[in-house]
Amino acid sequence: MFGPQYDALLARLAACVGETHVLTQNEAMAPYLVDWRGRYHGAALAVARPASTAEVAALVVACRDAGVGVVPQGGNTGLCGGATPLASVPSVVVSLARMQAIRQINALDNALTVEAGCTLSAVQAAAAECERLFPLSLASEGSCQIGGNIATNAGGVHVLRYGNMRQLVLGLEVVLPDGQVWDGLRCLNKDNTGYDLKQLFIGSEGTLGIVTAAVLKLHPRPRQRVVAWCAVVDPEAALGVLDRLRAAFGERVSAFELIGRSALEVVLAHIPGARAPLADVPDWSVLLELGDVDPDAPLAEQLEAQMAGYFDAGLIVDAVIASSLAQCDALWSLRENISEAQRLEGFSIKHDISVPVSAIPKFLRRAELALLAAFPGLRIVVFGHVGDGNLHYNLSCVDRADNERLMVDSAALNRIVHDTVAGLGGSISAEHGLGQLKRDEIVRYKSALELDLMRRIKMAIDPGGLMNPGKVLPPASLP
Amino acid sequence: MFGPQYDALLARLAACVGETHVLTQNEAMAPYLVDWRGRYHGAALAVARPASTAEVAALVVACRDAGVGVVPQGGNTGLCGGATPLASVPSVVVSLARMQAIRQINALDNALTVEAGCTLSAVQAAAAECERLFPLSLASEGSCQIGGNIATNAGGVHVLRYGNMRQLVLGLEVVLPDGQVWDGLRCLNKDNTGYDLKQLFIGSEGTLGIVTAAVLKLHPRPRQRVVAWCAVVDPEAALGVLDRLRAAFGERVSAFELIGRSALEVVLAHIPGARAPLADVPDWSVLLELGDVDPDAPLAEQLEAQMAGYFDAGLIVDAVIASSLAQCDALWSLRENISEAQRLEGFSIKHDISVPVSAIPKFLRRAELALLAAFPGLRIVVFGHVGDGNLHYNLSCVDRADNERLMVDSAALNRIVHDTVAGLGGSISAEHGLGQLKRDEIVRYKSALELDLMRRIKMAIDPGGLMNPGKVLPPASLP
Repeated sequence: MFGPQYDALLARLAACVGETHVLTQNEAMAPYLVDWRGRYHGAALAVARPASTAEVAALVVACRDAGVGVVPQGGNTGLCGGATPLASVPSVVVSLARMQAIRQINALDNALTVEAGCTLSAVQAAAAECERLFPLSLASEGSCQIGGNIATNAGGVHVLRYGNMRQLVLGLEVVLPDGQVWDGLRCLNKDNTGYDLKQLFIGSEGTLGIVTAAVLKLHPRPRQRVVAWCAVVDPEAALGVLDRLRAAFGERVSAFELIGRSALEVVLAHIPGARAPLADVPDWSVLLELGDVDPDAPLAEQLEAQMAGYFDAGLIVDAVIASSLAQCDALWSLRENISEAQRLEGFSIKHDISVPVSAIPKFLRRAELALLAAFPGLRIVVFGHVGDGNLHYNLSCVDRADNERLMVDSAALNRIVHDTVAGLGGSISAEHGLGQLKRDEIVRYKSALELDLMRRIKMAIDPGGLMNPGKVLPPASLP
Repeated sequence: MFGPQYDALLARLAACVGETHVLTQNEAMAPYLVDWRGRYHGAALAVARPASTAEVAALVVACRDAGVGVVPQGGNTGLCGGATPLASVPSVVVSLARMQAIRQINALDNALTVEAGCTLSAVQAAAAECERLFPLSLASEGSCQIGGNIATNAGGVHVLRYGNMRQLVLGLEVVLPDGQVWDGLRCLNKDNTGYDLKQLFIGSEGTLGIVTAAVLKLHPRPRQRVVAWCAVVDPEAALGVLDRLRAAFGERVSAFELIGRSALEVVLAHIPGARAPLADVPDWSVLLELGDVDPDAPLAEQLEAQMAGYFDAGLIVDAVIASSLAQCDALWSLRENISEAQRLEGFSIKHDISVPVSAIPKFLRRAELALLAAFPGLRIVVFGHVGDGNLHYNLSCVDRADNERLMVDSAALNRIVHDTVAGLGGSISAEHGLGQLKRDEIVRYKSALELDLMRRIKMAIDPGGLMNPGKVLPPASLP
């Protein structure tokens, strides 16, 4: 597709990583050239699969010499096309999948040094083995890779307690756009010797360099968890419960998820074995989890007492506290299967937004009003990490036959959602990043100054513009 | 001192902020031109005291037009001369002290929007008023300002539980080197729409812009605290206690401080009313604090039970748990008065270092051995946030008469300490920053690549080099 002028480059790539680890046939490359939702289809000169940091560096130098883009790819589970190469730019996909070593575990330091290709669940398992917790947790944890989690500053269900990926990184090793390796693999909780360079790379979606390894921060491992499902009166009440819960349990509140009626209904309809947790399907549910290192703390009893207060205050109308591990998992699987149930049902427009926590009810009211006025018959599936002010806000049609019309209107509907978010000081990408999907959309919401600062950083670190071309930064032609 | 060619600038500064808020007389400027330890004496064309972000921006534009440096200054409590202007560079000190507004408190969002000139204790008080905790806590909290805390990524005694200042910032407002105002005052726990620009400014010591306001993250307020002082067998044992304590209490461990014999002795000798917490003065003490939102949790009882285990395991030999608020404060004041006691005693060379937590004992052994070999008669005063791997490691002489010789040798002694730190993968400035003091010293410990990246960032954001000139970045003449 890109012509024979790249033959020398391909030979050089093979010299870097071995011929078997440079894929050039369409069939072999195919899984790397499409995102997992199947929305983006790209092209590449090759897919290279390095096994070491030195090999990554050699690949980057080869690409730089040839003036060819470099697209880092982890587990390819991203939702915004950030790891899919553009079809229009000659580039090489660098898959980190072979770099899976756990380089070092140091329990006393509460730190774990891992290579970028480790899956999130492998990292969690390594932490558990030394009686620690690596708290990042998200639906794709079995296949997403830690390098991608870092590049996208991943979020998930435990951010409320432990922060985003950014808060869990102590050190990084990065291959820079010129092929130099920055060894920032520090294992320090405090280090103020100049600019904190690792912050540049976290969340920059591979546009400033390739994360090849990281020192991750571990936490004490909770030895007890309590999970509950409650029917809250409305989203305001959910926030009231959250506020009281944190006052009562502090950091022990590990997760606090809001689930709208239609989100629960779609799970009950499509996921085999899914059972409604309460007698009625409530308009609004909260799934909450408490965790404590003390296995004997009377968490469940204390939660029950709290819940009684929430009933009396008119915040909740029904609730169940899981009394076994199996019940905990069953409640969580209702939440975790929402995306899969939606996939089974068919087309939907997805949003990943955040607003200040207190603005959640206002966002829900405003967005629904504006959307239904613009598109009667719309079904809004809402769920997400309300404790972080982060909602997944997905649109499809009550009558599936209308979905085709919905697709046509999706830009207009996105605009309504995003403008509503912006009006409340929110973010149009809370935890998924920009990738290709929202690259140009942010021009409407970021100041020219902020875009300019982003471009100056990009220019300072990647003046040739070869790292993950076409992602994150809107083209200069946009204001 | 700098001549009449700056008269037009001075008139312009007065037009920006009003004549009474531009100090140009030596006497009026004096307190702004020396750091509080009296180690750095600088000079300035003027000290300007703006009352608003717009005034800060106007001042910066005026300085830029005149090609004059801008030195932001908060409470002037820094330890590395970062807020003291150089004597050799014409510059204007911009004091943020008049920008003290608490702009917004939002309890439901656990967020507080404050101006840079608020003292840390004013911020703590504002958080407490809405039943929240702003956890940053350090000895100078009554006079240091939050803008300075952000610019230096301040640490303190609660980093173990709540992180550094960086982890407590949700949003920033920054006046950039060209006078543009970046409004990044977001109140979002998750926002992945491009590069996280606020990370650039946090910890950059005013070399990239002036922080004028911030959205700070609040935490649930503990309603109970338990403070204990224990005599540990040695530093290894201290780490053993820390490890067990975190396994037992998780995030409830709010502070874990190591105090060497000489540090306690100097307090007992110089601070009126200071009393030894235990029958003997131990070689190594630990001051620890637990905090819980639950006022009825049996923290003290649980700690007592834990302590019994630590005795049995041979980790501690004596301990006292404070049984009243007054006793808690008395124990803490022993720790907090170490610096003051050292000041009363006279000269000392101070270090603020960090290593991986597990390397603390090795650091102490290696550094002591090397130092005593080079300088017999040295007294090492060690204390600090051992839970973060961060020690304050101060040197003076057993015989005060030798201190003059110590001063002469201080560069050689610094070198020994810093080389030992570097050999263990540590940091020569854990929480105090570089300022002037360690600006050139880092050249020895950072790779040329890292220095180059720092300079590229500086060039991208402050190409004129007018923001806090001479700080953080080593001159280009150094490799």
